[in-house]
Amino acid sequence: MAGSSVKPTPVLKDELDIVIPTIRNLDFLEMWRPFFEQYHLIIVQDGDPSKIIQVPEGFDYELYNRNDINRILGPKASCISFKDSACRCFGYMVSKKKYIYTIDDDCFLWFLTELSQFRSGGSLRADSVVSVSVSGDGAWNIMVDLKFLDPLFHGLDFKVILRDMKPLVAKNPSGEQINALEQHIKNLLSPSTPFFFNTLYDPYREGADFVRGYPFSLREGAPTAVSHGLWLNIPDYDAPTQLVKPLERNTRYVDTVLTIPKGTLFPMCGMNLGFNRELIGPAMYFGLMGDGQPIGRYDDMWAGWCMKVICDHMGYGVKTGLPYIWHSKASNPFVNLKKEYKGIYWQEDLIPFFQSAVLPKECVTVQQCYIELAKQVKEKLGKIDPYFIKLADAMVTWIEAWDELNSTAK
Amino acid sequence: MAGSSVKPTPVLKDELDIVIPTIRNLDFLEMWRPFFEQYHLIIVQDGDPSKIIQVPEGFDYELYNRNDINRILGPKASCISFKDSACRCFGYMVSKKKYIYTIDDDCFLWFLTELSQFRSGGSLRADSVVSVSVSGDGAWNIMVDLKFLDPLFHGLDFKVILRDMKPLVAKNPSGEQINALEQHIKNLLSPSTPFFFNTLYDPYREGADFVRGYPFSLREGAPTAVSHGLWLNIPDYDAPTQLVKPLERNTRYVDTVLTIPKGTLFPMCGMNLGFNRELIGPAMYFGLMGDGQPIGRYDDMWAGWCMKVICDHMGYGVKTGLPYIWHSKASNPFVNLKKEYKGIYWQEDLIPFFQSAVLPKECVTVQQCYIELAKQVKEKLGKIDPYFIKLADAMVTWIEAWDELNSTAK
Repeated sequence: MAGSSVKPTPVLKDELDIVIPTIRNLDFLEMWRPFFEQYHLIIVQDGDPSKIIQVPEGFDYELYNRNDINRILGPKASCISFKDSACRCFGYMVSKKKYIYTIDDDCFLWFLTELSQFRSGGSLRADSVVSVSVSGDGAWNIMVDLKFLDPLFHGLDFKVILRDMKPLVAKNPSGEQINALEQHIKNLLSPSTPFFFNTLYDPYREGADFVRGYPFSLREGAPTAVSHGLWLNIPDYDAPTQLVKPLERNTRYVDTVLTIPKGTLFPMCGMNLGFNRELIGPAMYFGLMGDGQPIGRYDDMWAGWCMKVICDHMGYGVKTGLPYIWHSKASNPFVNLKKEYKGIYWQEDLIPFFQSAVLPKECVTVQQCYIELAKQVKEKLGKIDPYFIKLADAMVTWIEAWDELNSTAK
Repeated sequence: MAGSSVKPTPVLKDELDIVIPTIRNLDFLEMWRPFFEQYHLIIVQDGDPSKIIQVPEGFDYELYNRNDINRILGPKASCISFKDSACRCFGYMVSKKKYIYTIDDDCFLWFLTELSQFRSGGSLRADSVVSVSVSGDGAWNIMVDLKFLDPLFHGLDFKVILRDMKPLVAKNPSGEQINALEQHIKNLLSPSTPFFFNTLYDPYREGADFVRGYPFSLREGAPTAVSHGLWLNIPDYDAPTQLVKPLERNTRYVDTVLTIPKGTLFPMCGMNLGFNRELIGPAMYFGLMGDGQPIGRYDDMWAGWCMKVICDHMGYGVKTGLPYIWHSKASNPFVNLKKEYKGIYWQEDLIPFFQSAVLPKECVTVQQCYIELAKQVKEKLGKIDPYFIKLADAMVTWIEAWDELNSTAK
């Protein structure tokens, strides 16, 4: 019976890889150490491959830079974006695990009483974390950018080092620390409900169930392919909204996980994302973004729309909601606008395209679905801009590369 | 710009009626007095019309019993259920207002420190409110059923009178009192987002907006037809789930309002519900339940499924989530099972029927949609049981009665 007993969440230590795209030293991992230390990391280094990325001691990881990607994929490396965090999907391809968790390197934990005092003081806001160091005795020293909220004092912003801090992760309203990875694992291991909405949200959660009027034949649910986590602090806004609301912060902790219904699209953010690689991995292609491409910041959106159409076809579920992570630093809205502006008008055609996309019954694997979708992209979106013809070709290359790496591995 | 400014919520004093079906004295209104006193109430008295229903002093109301319904509707009164709270929809029909809020007479406010102490004590639970009286000086005396949680002491349950209580409504996690009606009005006056899911939920709420990747052409939203509120304490379970989980209580306050996406059905509960009568009133028929009918407890479900198909066709939005109300008393699961059991297997056919129902473009009013849906019910569900033929005829009668009352009124 759903929800009738509560079991400890398996840690999936040997079945999950953490994929992190980065261009800088991975100091932020210090904050995640208690949660990530027992997992294997796949680090995809973006940008200049001659740069040495420092990974804190004690983590088990493999690191790939552009030279590695070119060597492993040969000419097929063209499908992996360069100078864009879209390169992360290379990590999905080389993983040999059943589950993937991916996170950005600017996702810090919300950690300390002192910082929250600054935040709630009203006149000052701790806007970003500049650096972190951990001393031998486990005390943390964190350099923080402080910004004045009163426009009178703009320009007087300063940095402070907060010494001897205690690492506290983001807290839920009961004051308990959030273990983001554990929540993603819970989400992925329990079924989804894509065919009918439950007004108590996740019926498999402790203290909840299916409400009156929910068909019993649907109560087994569907396999969960994707767990999409959310963000506290800096919201995931597009450049125009960032420009209009520079000070808006997301402080609302919505205590729920829900299944995005079948037939409904949503904007998937790649910054706090778990998925079942065996079920849906080949659909998690983050497209062609960044260097040499006309757009950026649509890598995760593209993956989300393709993935959702395929999950709907395959009968898999996609969840959104918990866990929250703390997003510490807003990206530059002017840079973002430059990356996004074509996407902002293209998406007006992309959404109707994905909303009406139908995959034939003959497509019974994710790879077959993806190749079919690439064909439809070329036919229907190729008219909008030649970029989509190139993207459709890259989608096919991606599947070829995926199959090559994943069949030889077995 | 969405969410860019926060205005006080209009109270809609002259534009909203509160509809309450009842078989007993309306003592519970005492608890809602601060919120309901300025509105007009439409009370639909179910059962024996010779019984006198006591309404507390100071409320502005009209009351209809079965004799009134028969007199007003003549032979068309056959479409209004008897001995079932489905009779409430008669109140929707006679209202002359733009908005309706409907609530059950067993929805009490969560009100007092003392009671919550009993609840959190662990060994005793305040299970239901037996009676309420308010003394001249405004102090409340509330008689409560207390039940022992330890099975050893079952049967030793007792009643206490809690004297001089302070009326506190259900609280949100910040400790603020919930004004359920105000939240419904907020929900109904702000647009819905049925065509694309927003991962920050209601984008029109203070502190939220549309996230990156949300098409700009969809940000105006759609008119909101329905606001479906939820319940704390006794969850809205069907009889089998009640039997399996007699002690389960809903204690999770999920701080969100979201739009049920287009094409997705949900189980609508009629116990804490607001709607725009001008937009969707004629679709809010609660069917044939209770006396002389083979099922009960599917009145609101039926209305919800019909309403959702029609809202999807008309381009209107349906929201669920806040506000919570406190549901004080579980109904008897054995009685419920008797009412529900046909519904439990019929719904396995009803859901696919409503999921695949298509209304032709020629249906441009809610009445036309509803008549068309009645036709499809007769054709497709009539095969399952003759009850659905009778129900389809009642659906047509309902629309005829609605038009009669609402055209002569204008």
